[in-house]
Amino acid sequence: MTTTRERDQAVLVVSGGMDSCVLAYYYAAAGFDLHLLSFDYGQKHVKELEYAHKYIARLRERFAQGEQGLRVQHEILSLPIASLLPDSTCALLNDEEPMPYGHYSDESMKTTVVPYRNPNMLLQAATVAWGEGASVVAYAAHQGDHAIYPDCRPAFVNAFNAMLAAAMDGPAPIVQTPFLQFSKAQIARLGASLDVPFELTWSCYEGGRKGYGELHCGRCGTCVERRWSFAQAGLSDPTHYASEALDEDEGFHA
Amino acid sequence: MTTTRERDQAVLVVSGGMDSCVLAYYYAAAGFDLHLLSFDYGQKHVKELEYAHKYIARLRERFAQGEQGLRVQHEILSLPIASLLPDSTCALLNDEEPMPYGHYSDESMKTTVVPYRNPNMLLQAATVAWGEGASVVAYAAHQGDHAIYPDCRPAFVNAFNAMLAAAMDGPAPIVQTPFLQFSKAQIARLGASLDVPFELTWSCYEGGRKGYGELHCGRCGTCVERRWSFAQAGLSDPTHYASEALDEDEGFHA
Repeated sequence: MTTTRERDQAVLVVSGGMDSCVLAYYYAAAGFDLHLLSFDYGQKHVKELEYAHKYIARLRERFAQGEQGLRVQHEILSLPIASLLPDSTCALLNDEEPMPYGHYSDESMKTTVVPYRNPNMLLQAATVAWGEGASVVAYAAHQGDHAIYPDCRPAFVNAFNAMLAAAMDGPAPIVQTPFLQFSKAQIARLGASLDVPFELTWSCYEGGRKGYGELHCGRCGTCVERRWSFAQAGLSDPTHYASEALDEDEGFHA
Repeated sequence: MTTTRERDQAVLVVSGGMDSCVLAYYYAAAGFDLHLLSFDYGQKHVKELEYAHKYIARLRERFAQGEQGLRVQHEILSLPIASLLPDSTCALLNDEEPMPYGHYSDESMKTTVVPYRNPNMLLQAATVAWGEGASVVAYAAHQGDHAIYPDCRPAFVNAFNAMLAAAMDGPAPIVQTPFLQFSKAQIARLGASLDVPFELTWSCYEGGRKGYGELHCGRCGTCVERRWSFAQAGLSDPTHYASEALDEDEGFHA
């Protein structure tokens, strides 16, 4: 007797970063077919999209073949955030704005907020989910994001879901955020348990510019957060950083 | 003594239709600088965008010159709704779906709902508004839209504004819907009072296809609604329709 497994589908908004990669592995491990969406929104660190391709190729080898046979689709969508904000002083969009160094929750990191970036991405993901009858949309917002990024906070997620439900008649997709109250170290531990290939992920906001090439700068907010999370989780960090030493001033308190 | 008038700015989502045109005239009449955004979202009736250009050119002649000297900017943004919904059976997106004829609030009009169209447009408009420090975003949702289009209802507008406020720290732009409880006939009357050039607006969902050219078909939901509103308002209708006669069955009860 063969049984036909019910297939669930999740539409995930993923960058090239480690949290997104763990998110994709998490839903694959739970048996969801995946429609992965990455966004080219004019970010300087577009290198993260190359890394999304890398870890998704690895995920596909593991989950799309053989007995599990999950469907794994990945698309890079273009989002005109940068052109909607031509005068933006956001350090992720504007070449003339310096990237702030330090800890992720520092006030200085506010220059890395891209206005309405996550709602724009999530809304396109929800539109795709509606068209495909997928009930789940997800992104990897976590507790470390809350201080600086309002569109990663629980209040935003709740408001966004209420908006989605009001915008269409019938069962709307729901944005899930399984890591919303996790620290990045907890995400790293979960990822290690799921054999996530962290070496195929990219965090650095500098995106290989300024001669960094394939090295993470090691000093921007997201690099500091990445290093801290591996150390805090007691995991060896596979990342190659240009700046290996971090001192207290830079918020590295692992 | 010269006084410097305070300038307010509104970012308006406008189609080529009469409600949008009245909306633009309404905010111009109130002295707002206008940033008008229209969207090419893959709609069959892309002709409406030509008409948006026409009425905005007229509006500019009247409000952008001379003493009032309002700034009036118009952009057509591309929104990949159709490509996000490749299997859509929406009659506005899919060439093989017939356009329903009849009254705007008929059940059959549900095939003209474009999933998450308004939220996607409003979110891009809010992003622009944020970048420019404009406090107002507006669109021309009205009472006649409520039956079929959930993203024109008060509950949606409230939920969308709550989402906008949660998504950024600091004063978020607010979506205003001055016509939300107006009938289309009330909008037509207001427009006539503001000398709106209705002859430069386009409603028909057929968009000049099927040989209609510059004629409105006269029978699709939005044509029926347009005709009804002029008749109900006691205004002469400057529109040329291919089908001049409408009977009770088609919902024309003026």
